[in-house]
Order: sequence, then C-alpha cells, then structure tokens
Amino acid sequence: MSIDDILADALRLVKPDRLEEARVETLSSIVLGKVREILASEGVDAEAEILGSVAKGTWLKGDYDIDVFILYPPHIDRGVLEDLSLRIGVRVFEDLGGRWILRYAEHPYVEGWIDDVRVNIVPACRSRPGSWVTAVDRTPYHTEYVRRMIRSEEERDQVRLLKKFMKGVGVYGADVRVSGFSGYLCELFIISFGSFIETIRSAARGWRGLFIDLEGYYDSIEAARKVFGDQPLIVVDPVDPNRNVASPVSLTKLSEFTAASRLFLDKPSIVFFNPPSIEVDIDSIRRAIECRGTSILALAFEEPRIPPDTLWGEIHRSLRAFVNVFEKWEFRVIRSSAWSGEGLTVFIVELESRFIPGVKLHRGPPVDSREAYRFLEKYMGGDIRVSGPWIDGDRWYVARRRGYSDAYLLAMDVLKGDLLAYGFSKDIAASIARGFGIYMDGGLLELAVRCRSFLEYLYDLLDGRPRWLRFGFSKDTCG
Amino acid sequence: MSIDDILADALRLVKPDRLEEARVETLSSIVLGKVREILASEGVDAEAEILGSVAKGTWLKGDYDIDVFILYPPHIDRGVLEDLSLRIGVRVFEDLGGRWILRYAEHPYVEGWIDDVRVNIVPACRSRPGSWVTAVDRTPYHTEYVRRMIRSEEERDQVRLLKKFMKGVGVYGADVRVSGFSGYLCELFIISFGSFIETIRSAARGWRGLFIDLEGYYDSIEAARKVFGDQPLIVVDPVDPNRNVASPVSLTKLSEFTAASRLFLDKPSIVFFNPPSIEVDIDSIRRAIECRGTSILALAFEEPRIPPDTLWGEIHRSLRAFVNVFEKWEFRVIRSSAWSGEGLTVFIVELESRFIPGVKLHRGPPVDSREAYRFLEKYMGGDIRVSGPWIDGDRWYVARRRGYSDAYLLAMDVLKGDLLAYGFSKDIAASIARGFGIYMDGGLLELAVRCRSFLEYLYDLLDGRPRWLRFGFSKDTCG
Repeated sequence: MSIDDILADALRLVKPDRLEEARVETLSSIVLGKVREILASEGVDAEAEILGSVAKGTWLKGDYDIDVFILYPPHIDRGVLEDLSLRIGVRVFEDLGGRWILRYAEHPYVEGWIDDVRVNIVPACRSRPGSWVTAVDRTPYHTEYVRRMIRSEEERDQVRLLKKFMKGVGVYGADVRVSGFSGYLCELFIISFGSFIETIRSAARGWRGLFIDLEGYYDSIEAARKVFGDQPLIVVDPVDPNRNVASPVSLTKLSEFTAASRLFLDKPSIVFFNPPSIEVDIDSIRRAIECRGTSILALAFEEPRIPPDTLWGEIHRSLRAFVNVFEKWEFRVIRSSAWSGEGLTVFIVELESRFIPGVKLHRGPPVDSREAYRFLEKYMGGDIRVSGPWIDGDRWYVARRRGYSDAYLLAMDVLKGDLLAYGFSKDIAASIARGFGIYMDGGLLELAVRCRSFLEYLYDLLDGRPRWLRFGFSKDTCG
Repeated sequence: MSIDDILADALRLVKPDRLEEARVETLSSIVLGKVREILASEGVDAEAEILGSVAKGTWLKGDYDIDVFILYPPHIDRGVLEDLSLRIGVRVFEDLGGRWILRYAEHPYVEGWIDDVRVNIVPACRSRPGSWVTAVDRTPYHTEYVRRMIRSEEERDQVRLLKKFMKGVGVYGADVRVSGFSGYLCELFIISFGSFIETIRSAARGWRGLFIDLEGYYDSIEAARKVFGDQPLIVVDPVDPNRNVASPVSLTKLSEFTAASRLFLDKPSIVFFNPPSIEVDIDSIRRAIECRGTSILALAFEEPRIPPDTLWGEIHRSLRAFVNVFEKWEFRVIRSSAWSGEGLTVFIVELESRFIPGVKLHRGPPVDSREAYRFLEKYMGGDIRVSGPWIDGDRWYVARRRGYSDAYLLAMDVLKGDLLAYGFSKDIAASIARGFGIYMDGGLLELAVRCRSFLEYLYDLLDGRPRWLRFGFSKDTCG
C-alpha cells in the first residue's frame, strides 16, 4: 500500500464523525453554560472558556476531554481561586448529574464524567505572558495561538495523524511516565513542517539538536542554548520565549520517534497508527523465561499513593538506584524497567546471570604511592585474599573474593538496608520498608497471574522490541 | 636485626673468599695465556683480554663466568671474525681439556667448561665509541669504565650486595625472560648513588622518570627523552650517549624493585638476599586449586628450538595474543603467565570462571545513524537475538547470545585456527600447529608431576605473591 492509502486509512481512525462532533459541541455548550450561570449567580469576577483539543478541533475520534477553564483576574488570592473553583466544579457535576473527583496536579481541579465524557473544570488566571500565576495560565494563549495558525480542516487532520502516530509508537504524552510529546507539541510541529508526512520526514533524519522557534524570539540556536541548556530538542513556546515545549521529551522517546519515522517511510503500514493487540498466554511466557538463559529479578511493593507524575519521577530515580547497586557489585545488567498499577509497583532487572564468579581481579594502587602499604596490609592476610598481591606494570593487583556472587542475596541486603543512602526516593523507600517481595525468573508469573495489564507489559518486555518494530519491520524491505 | 647486621650477613653470602679469588685468577690467566698463544702462533691480528665481572672484581661468590674477549681491528670482515674466533675458541677447550658448545646470540661465541667453571670465548672489535661493529664492542669500554670508577673493595662489595638483592627479589638479568637489571646497570647505580643502601633508598621513592647521566651528555631529561622516548627509567651509558642501559628493564620489574626496596627498608631481612626455598607437595597444590573458585587453563606445547631471548620474546607476544582472545570474548582474565623448560612451553591463563552467561547486552549504533538499519536487519531475526532490539537514550540495544560461553571451547577453536592472524608469533604458532594440550584446573597436575621446576613455578603462581613479599612482609611492621 502507498503512504497515501495508509494515511487515508489512518484518517478514518482519527477523524471524528459528524455525530461525535455534534455531541462534543452540544455537551461543551451545556457545561460551559452551566459554569457561566454559576459564576454569574455567585457574582464571581471570572470568565469561563472551553480550551484544549476540543476548542482547537484536534481531538482524536472517541478520545476527548472537555476542558472548561475558569479564568480569574491575575491578582486573585491563590487560596480563594482554589476554593471557589472546586466549589463551582462540584456544583456543575451535581447540577448536571455526573460523578466527579478532586484532582491535585501542580494545582487542584475537578474531574468529572457526564454521559461517560470526561469533563475537567480547571481554574487559571488571565495573566499576561511572562507573568504566569498558575501552571496552566498559558493554556488560553496556546489555544488561541493554535486556532490562529491552524485554520483549515486539512491542517487539523494532519495534527490528528501525528498524534495518532505518536500514540501508536508509544511516544505520545508529556507526563513523567511516558516523557514523550504533548498534543500542543504535535500542533507546533504541524505549524512548523506543514504536514504529517513532512514532520515524519524531518524526524527520520534525526532530531537531536533540532531548534524550532516559530515566533523568532532567538537569533540563533546558540542564543537559545543559553536559556535552555543542552536539551536534545528545543521548541520555543510561541507564547513564552522562556519555555521549551519539548523539555519533557526524553532522549529515548525522541530516538524512538526518529526510528519509527524512518521505518514508517521505508515500510508504510497502518500498524504504526494502530498496533495490533497481542495475545498473551501465561504458558508461553513461562517457556520464554525458562529458555532465555538470563536471570530476571522483580521487586514488588505497594504503590505509593502520590500523584502520577510524582510517582513516576520517584520510580525512575529509585529504579536507577536499584540498578546502580547491581552494577557496583559487577552484576551485568541487560535491561531494567518498571511497571505500576492496581496498587502495586514492580521493578524488573534482567541480569546476564543471577550468579557471578566468587573471585575477581582487583587493581590496587601504584607501587610508589602512599596507598600501597594500606593495600598490602589489607590483602596480605584475611579471608578475602585468594592470590597475590602481585605487581603488573606500575600497580599492585590481587585476586580477591567478591562481596556478593548471588544477586538475590545482594538485593535482600540492600532492600533491608538504608534505601535513602542508596539513592531510593522517599515514598518508595518508605513503601519498601513496609514490605516487599522479590520474584526470580519463573516466579514472576505469580505477579502476572494477578493482573492482566502486568502480563502484557511483561510480554512486551521479554520480547524487548517496541510493538511498531515487531509488527512494522520485515527484512526484505530494508535498504 | 639492624640493617647493618643484615648487610654484614648478606656480604658473607656474596663475597668470594681468598681461595675462590685465587682460583678465578689462576684459571683466568691460564685461559688468557692459551688464547694469546694461539693468536700468536696463527699470526692473527687481534688481542685477547679478560672482561666482565671477573675483570671488574664484582662477581658473586660461587657464581662467575670467565669472559675472554678476542678483540679484532674494526675493519675486519665479519665472516672472518666469526670463523677465526670459533676455531680459536674450540682449540682453547681442546687444548685445556674442557667441553664446549657453540652459542649463537646476536653473534656467535664459544661457551665451554674447564674444571666446572664456565668460560666464554667471545669475538669483538676494537671499534671507536659510536662506531660499533658488533653488539659486544662496548664491553671493553664498560669494563674499563667500571674499573676506573670503582676502585675500592668496599665499593665492589656494594655492587655485590645490590646484585644479590636484585637476584633475591627476582629482578636481576637483562635477558628477555626476566627483563630486569643487568650487572653493568648495578655497577652504574653504585657509581651514581655511592652505596647499596642509598640505591635502595632512592628506588624506594620510585624510579619512574629517573634520569642518570654520569658523564653529563645531556643538558636535561627532556633532551634525553628526544633520543630515548618515553622509557620509564633512563640510565645513559657512560661510553655511549645513544644507549639507555636501562632499556631492557620492564615497568613491572622496575616496580617490583621499588616495592621490594620499600619493604626492605621498613622490615630489613636476609630473605631479600636469600629467599627460603619452598616445600612443594602435589597434594597441597591440588587442594589449593580445588578450593580456589577460579578456572585455570593451561596450554602446553613443544618448546621451539630458538635462542632464549628470541623464545621469550615470542612467548610474551603470543601469551598476550592468547589472553586477548579471552578478553575479546568477555571472559574475565585474572592473571596470565608462561613457563618454559625441559622441552615444554606452558601458557597459563586464570579466569574468573571457565563459563560465562550465554546472553549479553549488546550496544548498537545511534538511532539516527546509517548503521541502524544493518543492525536491525542483523538482530530482528536469526538465532542470536534473545530480546530486543530496543532503544535507550540515542542508541539501539539488543540482548544477544554470546559466541562462546565456555573458555575451553573458545581456546580449542582458536588453537586450531589461524594463530598468526590472532597475533601468535611464528615459531610458537608452528609448534602449536604440530600439537598442543589444554589442561584445566586439577588437570594441570598432570604437567606438574612431570617436572619439579614447573611444580615450583605453579606453586608460586597460585600463591601469587613474589617470594620476597611472602617471606618479608608481616602486618605489625607497616606504617
């Protein structure tokens, strides 16, 4: 199939039909009307607006939130803003007959459902650019900018294709867990490159060092680097020259997008937009682990009850600390990964082998150094010396026993020790201190049987390939 | 015991008694007279002289050769020089009733025994300094220089102590096997530092970068480095400014001398001059190997019949090539060593473990590189892929099967392959091609039972410590 045919198919997946558009429009005006009514009836000095992808007309078919912003004057007291907004938000859902919960991101908002559509009531300030009061004060400007720059339905479709492609290859989402591309970033790419395919072509050439500055705030990338540092991708926010819209994008996600774009151009396929679901059965996973020849160690503990971005920041940091322990003791780590869900957090570390030799070569100090004598004192006697010390070149060497030759025992000692000192984060250290489990190799299946989504995660991890690569690559097509 | 007492004891070990001196003197004049008689009777235009440690009076008790040099005019034809000298040399031993063999070092000479004393008849030219014709033309100048600079018996005793110490700690000998210090170098150290103990004190501070230029040929060490390059120790030959007398000294031997000197000053003992012999029994070696926890692999083959310095040059090079193979395939090498004697050469490589995990993490090319596609083609299918490829940071990674997880199988494949391509030297490659044996761990004892000197070598290697360290170190004395 040609790229054009693929894109036509993909468009059918992402473009809302008339019915959906009508429904979104109707629901939006009902909710907006309700909010404005409450504001008026309570005499609140604020305006309400629909913002986000619904306002911009760039949402993906069947996949939309209605974001209603309550915009206050910038001088409003922060406490008043929060109290008022939560009260108004709750009343909206009570009046319209929906369920709701309070969300605490960087600042609080009310999330609710009306007819199974998610509606967010979000407070913000009408602050001037550069004098932002809340974290979401830029949103009205973003919405306004995109509506001004993306005027045709064709352009909105290009945004939708790009979002769907990024979702399909797993790089969509600016939250800490994904560390990928936001919807706004997709819109800026379409404004910058003109179309989905030109964005993909550019990405395929590699985006490290890419610099996009639509409003021309900076004379050069060097000038921008003075503000943003050495980030791999810089996309200056058109409404705020001091913000890099691409700063949440990790180097890994950037690289994944480049690799997927390359492969898509070489072998266009709908799987990049719509990856097939996988059939996972526990027996095939059991066999895969058994004949793999590595050692897989899983650490499971209760998921700390903290906001998702905080949680995933802690997970990334603590997993790194856990991996460091194995590397410090010379276990060879193949890959590490984390999963969290259903009240459980799991760290997975795959090692070349659970056991390493009990003896190692240890390089000592130079023969003519001050430390040489301490080295000899330590290694001439005692239990850890196996052979030596001897001299090679200008240094002492000794063959000594390793501190740990079993990764399981190492993990147990670490996890019962001072986790903060090892670099684990506060909430995760506290959770592990309350209790943890270590599961080795086939033992992982105990976790997997409990939870379908963990099973799928494990299946993908064992395979190791991103799904777009697994389903999108075939040998004969590579140049 | 004080250092003075130790040195007095050591001196008794190394200083020849009157009887030995008389014997050396008598035998020297008999041999010298005989050579001169033959030269005269044949009308050869050459002179004969006693040179070397006997002429300098610096030989060690019970350990001397009588070196008779036949000195020709520098314009003599090389072939004539060799033919004449061998003929004369043979006649000396036939006339005096000794046995003899022809030796081919860099140039040929006759080695013989009279009354169990080794006598060498060596041809050389009376060439002017800097216009050397044969490799040993410097010897008359060396002998003359040392006799001029070392005039007292006390100074000669200092040379003897230094030689004996160096022998005792295993750094004496400029041959390729030892790659240590020559007797002439010992004499130059005593001339330079004045005494044994001052030499040791200097060495204990570390000799890397030491520069000795007794005749002041160079303005600075930088000027000397232009001639000698980056050698760790430079001792300019007083009779030849273009020669570094210390160039045969390896960094390891230099470091061993420094370390032994430090320890001797801290804990003076006769063991540095006269290390105790060791009691080796094969059962204790067997037990030591069994509970060691490493894997020892020995390669044995017929010793190539080439001069010792050539042999040991090839051994060092080929052992390095053998070790490189293991390191390339990611076996962790603890130590390597070689032994040669009684027609057999043995390479020993001690590994952390004979077996390593069958799977490894393999880092691929950057995602945006040209090589990325070749990497995907190679690792998406086929038997060596275990998991992946996946992206981390800006690169592809894959978990793949190792080429070898058993060092024995690797060694077998290499030794049956193209050894020259692996970097083995010519004669050793040829010998291995004719046949070899691999002995693992306890299997080494098969070699050891054949040969006492190999057994002692193996004992020292397993212990790992130089003998001076093993017997000269005790914990309580270290500062």
